[in-house]
Amino acid sequence: MSAYLREAWYAAAWSHEIGRSLLSRTIIETPVALYRAESGAVVAIGDSCPHRLVPLSLGRLEGDLVECAYHGLRFDPTGACVHSPHGDGKIPVKMRVPSYPVVERHQLVWVWMGEPAHADASKIPDFSCHDDPELGFVGGMIEMSANYQLITDNLLDLTHADFVHKGILSTPAIPRSRLETIQKGTTVYANRWMPNDEIQPAHAHIWAGHVPGETCDQWAYMRWDAPGHMLLDVGVTKVGAPRTEGVFVYGTDILTPKNATTTYYFWGVTRSYRVDDPAAGEEWKGFVNVAFGTQDKPMLEAQQQALGVRNIDDLGPVLLPCDAGAVRARRVLASLIKEQVSPSPEDPPLAAHRAAVRASANPVKPAL
Amino acid sequence: MSAYLREAWYAAAWSHEIGRSLLSRTIIETPVALYRAESGAVVAIGDSCPHRLVPLSLGRLEGDLVECAYHGLRFDPTGACVHSPHGDGKIPVKMRVPSYPVVERHQLVWVWMGEPAHADASKIPDFSCHDDPELGFVGGMIEMSANYQLITDNLLDLTHADFVHKGILSTPAIPRSRLETIQKGTTVYANRWMPNDEIQPAHAHIWAGHVPGETCDQWAYMRWDAPGHMLLDVGVTKVGAPRTEGVFVYGTDILTPKNATTTYYFWGVTRSYRVDDPAAGEEWKGFVNVAFGTQDKPMLEAQQQALGVRNIDDLGPVLLPCDAGAVRARRVLASLIKEQVSPSPEDPPLAAHRAAVRASANPVKPAL
Amino acid sequence: MSAYLREAWYAAAWSHEIGRSLLSRTIIETPVALYRAESGAVVAIGDSCPHRLVPLSLGRLEGDLVECAYHGLRFDPTGACVHSPHGDGKIPVKMRVPSYPVVERHQLVWVWMGEPAHADASKIPDFSCHDDPELGFVGGMIEMSANYQLITDNLLDLTHADFVHKGILSTPAIPRSRLETIQKGTTVYANRWMPNDEIQPAHAHIWAGHVPGETCDQWAYMRWDAPGHMLLDVGVTKVGAPRTEGVFVYGTDILTPKNATTTYYFWGVTRSYRVDDPAAGEEWKGFVNVAFGTQDKPMLEAQQQALGVRNIDDLGPVLLPCDAGAVRARRVLASLIKEQVSPSPEDPPLAAHRAAVRASANPVKPAL
Repeated sequence: MSAYLREAWYAAAWSHEIGRSLLSRTIIETPVALYRAESGAVVAIGDSCPHRLVPLSLGRLEGDLVECAYHGLRFDPTGACVHSPHGDGKIPVKMRVPSYPVVERHQLVWVWMGEPAHADASKIPDFSCHDDPELGFVGGMIEMSANYQLITDNLLDLTHADFVHKGILSTPAIPRSRLETIQKGTTVYANRWMPNDEIQPAHAHIWAGHVPGETCDQWAYMRWDAPGHMLLDVGVTKVGAPRTEGVFVYGTDILTPKNATTTYYFWGVTRSYRVDDPAAGEEWKGFVNVAFGTQDKPMLEAQQQALGVRNIDDLGPVLLPCDAGAVRARRVLASLIKEQVSPSPEDPPLAAHRAAVRASANPVKPAL
Repeated sequence: MSAYLREAWYAAAWSHEIGRSLLSRTIIETPVALYRAESGAVVAIGDSCPHRLVPLSLGRLEGDLVECAYHGLRFDPTGACVHSPHGDGKIPVKMRVPSYPVVERHQLVWVWMGEPAHADASKIPDFSCHDDPELGFVGGMIEMSANYQLITDNLLDLTHADFVHKGILSTPAIPRSRLETIQKGTTVYANRWMPNDEIQPAHAHIWAGHVPGETCDQWAYMRWDAPGHMLLDVGVTKVGAPRTEGVFVYGTDILTPKNATTTYYFWGVTRSYRVDDPAAGEEWKGFVNVAFGTQDKPMLEAQQQALGVRNIDDLGPVLLPCDAGAVRARRVLASLIKEQVSPSPEDPPLAAHRAAVRASANPVKPAL
Repeated sequence: MSAYLREAWYAAAWSHEIGRSLLSRTIIETPVALYRAESGAVVAIGDSCPHRLVPLSLGRLEGDLVECAYHGLRFDPTGACVHSPHGDGKIPVKMRVPSYPVVERHQLVWVWMGEPAHADASKIPDFSCHDDPELGFVGGMIEMSANYQLITDNLLDLTHADFVHKGILSTPAIPRSRLETIQKGTTVYANRWMPNDEIQPAHAHIWAGHVPGETCDQWAYMRWDAPGHMLLDVGVTKVGAPRTEGVFVYGTDILTPKNATTTYYFWGVTRSYRVDDPAAGEEWKGFVNVAFGTQDKPMLEAQQQALGVRNIDDLGPVLLPCDAGAVRARRVLASLIKEQVSPSPEDPPLAAHRAAVRASANPVKPAL
């Protein structure tokens, strides 16, 4: 088994994925069965019956209990076996599965994979933008056959947009801007302020205020928390104008390792414009499926394929200044894994951020 | 290579599968080429030409000889190379393949994988029911991507029927009955006597004498011989009535390991009713394909998938009383493998059993 | 990684396969990106960007430069990174990929995988027949899932034709002739002179001069150079007549290991008859696709499958006199690999050979 950070919250699913049936997700090589109890609370227990080690997720719900499909043992939300249909019904003490602390927040189901007593919901990074009534949100999940850290590298170095997403997310403003890498505690920021430069095609498309041919101020501020939870504040406004005159989106990129070479990539787009127009959300779904699904995904999977079982860091990649954010994040994560210490996301960034946006005056470099 | 019992008879094929062409089967990781000589006798030789190590089964028969498809060397039923088309036709002494003792019995082709001198046909377990003119027989083979011992576990604990085969083979009579585990020499019996209880749907379907709503006496007596040869005596009769008033079938379950994670599962159903009606046999074929092929198979393959290369016993499964038969069989097999001693099936069980059935009086608990 | 001869020329592609786009080929487990510079010269550089280790072949050509698809770094034909679009455009000294010496010769692109200073084009084996205006040439490539040495074994022992290619390339003349194995330096010849014997069906088909029922003189002279470069001089003429009265073809068999179990098989057929008739070439394409693609390929892949990761030599294959050429070639190659010394093909064989053919008198045993 690869080394993972166990002491962490992982996104297991979007809230709407969990209902009154069993869903199996494998998180850091550990199979987890997820379902919603009759109360509506989400339950996460080990997806392996201790009796014959078949996945419990093959079974069915009986009220709040999971009945194993093989021999009918039933487990409650704490993971205890509470019913055996066999003989006198006696249940061995060891007949239980792990139960994982779960928090449902910001439309995501977060599962704590570490020592249960250490689970602290305040350490879930802030993705409250998903719920902000002043913003419009869509999200989805793409499974990628690539290590989550390779995807993190991709996201903390947005210069790739100019090549991988040419004609969609590209602008020479990205590579020619300076990458500002900031570490606060275990949170890493990789920020680009791109004043008075060429507009991204996507920005030109979504921003009603854009005048063809005009340069603009743009920004891409990425926040990273271990093990792979990112929020990108990206947008555009007129040169020197407050950001309230332009548009922005929060891009959610949450990476949950299934194993060393497969990742659940939970993406979200929270937009500041056409907030109540579902068509604007649908447009983003299609757009993300193209950009992440048909551009990033084959690139990352080719990279993983080329690496095979080898770790990229052991192969001496030659780095560039634009890798500074990715390098910093890898270093923070390596240290947390070594110590098995939970990350402490800076908080509360988004509320402060939204307030700053509302109060912003010209010219403002928005602070995340 | 995994540890197997080499000193054993393995079912390689049903008799009707072997004719005047070459069939390849891999038994305990050893490729074997099978064919019928002109005399009708079945031949089993190593399926790897000693010259270039290609499968001989790619070749063709020339009389009783197998001609290698690559360079035309010919091997006789003893495994000796007896013809080389090359140059002066001289044949190196070492140019020979193993020849495996074969016995064709009970419509199956049995191959001895151990020391040839130890081959003793009297140690083939008794499946004479296949040939009993008073009974009707059908059989088939399903290849499963699961270790043969996992399939044995499944078969020696029939409580799974109540869950995996719900609505077909299920009855609460199974889990609420007592499992009687008996070991006689290297034969293990896992028996359930289920008096005066709910009828299985399959029993209700095949037994003309069933009155809807009436409870009945049922039994499921499983005989196991190493390495994975099972015969189930299962049936139903009126409460307190002799079994001759009801119906029963012998269920044949013979497991031949292809390798550690793949098994040839030779199944048979020998029925006591509508003996001469082929439609009754066809009905069982369809039924087995559903129950074993679409219910047990995905369960067992999911179990194997979850285990990967790990042995279930090393993972500390938490056992139940209903596992007693499976545990006993695993223990016997482990000991036989360790000592590489051939199992000695109890004999002759079926003749005695049939006689007992004929003589049975009310009430009788049939003895296998 | 398996042991390969690095100090050698490998055929990477047919000339016509390389143009103004990027082609990826993996040679002895080393990914190579190939393209044609604006001058028309073929370039071969390492197909792995040193920055993030993605294949450069996913990128695009910008003049003579390769632009990485991920972050836009550009590499010149020497492998040096000469352009970075990032920040101040500074390029780390180590940002370079290997550049492989390339020679385009005889319609093939040859890449030197050893120490660049050792690259000596005079050591490329002579396949000048491809360019001979008096002969007609066709070629192609088949990827086989088999180790290149297994394919070499196949080609240095043509007795397999009588079985694998029965009815097409078969004649009992092959196995009943004597194999003459000659080693000159690191070149191995495996020759068969088959006077006054049954004609091959393929010979009967292509040779207008054949009288049905008549025996003939035939020959099959194979030249092998390490690591897997073969040229077969094979043909037919009237008994005792000079070869100029018959027909012959040079069969090209060049094996480039992709890895231990996959090989690029570059085949060619250079014919002495209907030289200017494209239909004669098309006929050979169809013929090779049947003989190599549907007869040799499944045999060789079954052999590889049976061997798995094991080396055939470690399994004690029982050899025949017809294996002498293959054994000799394996021995030469093993020694070259051990010493990492480049083979020195005998030269110039073909010019001398063609002159000898022109001057041949009856009876002549053509010398290769």
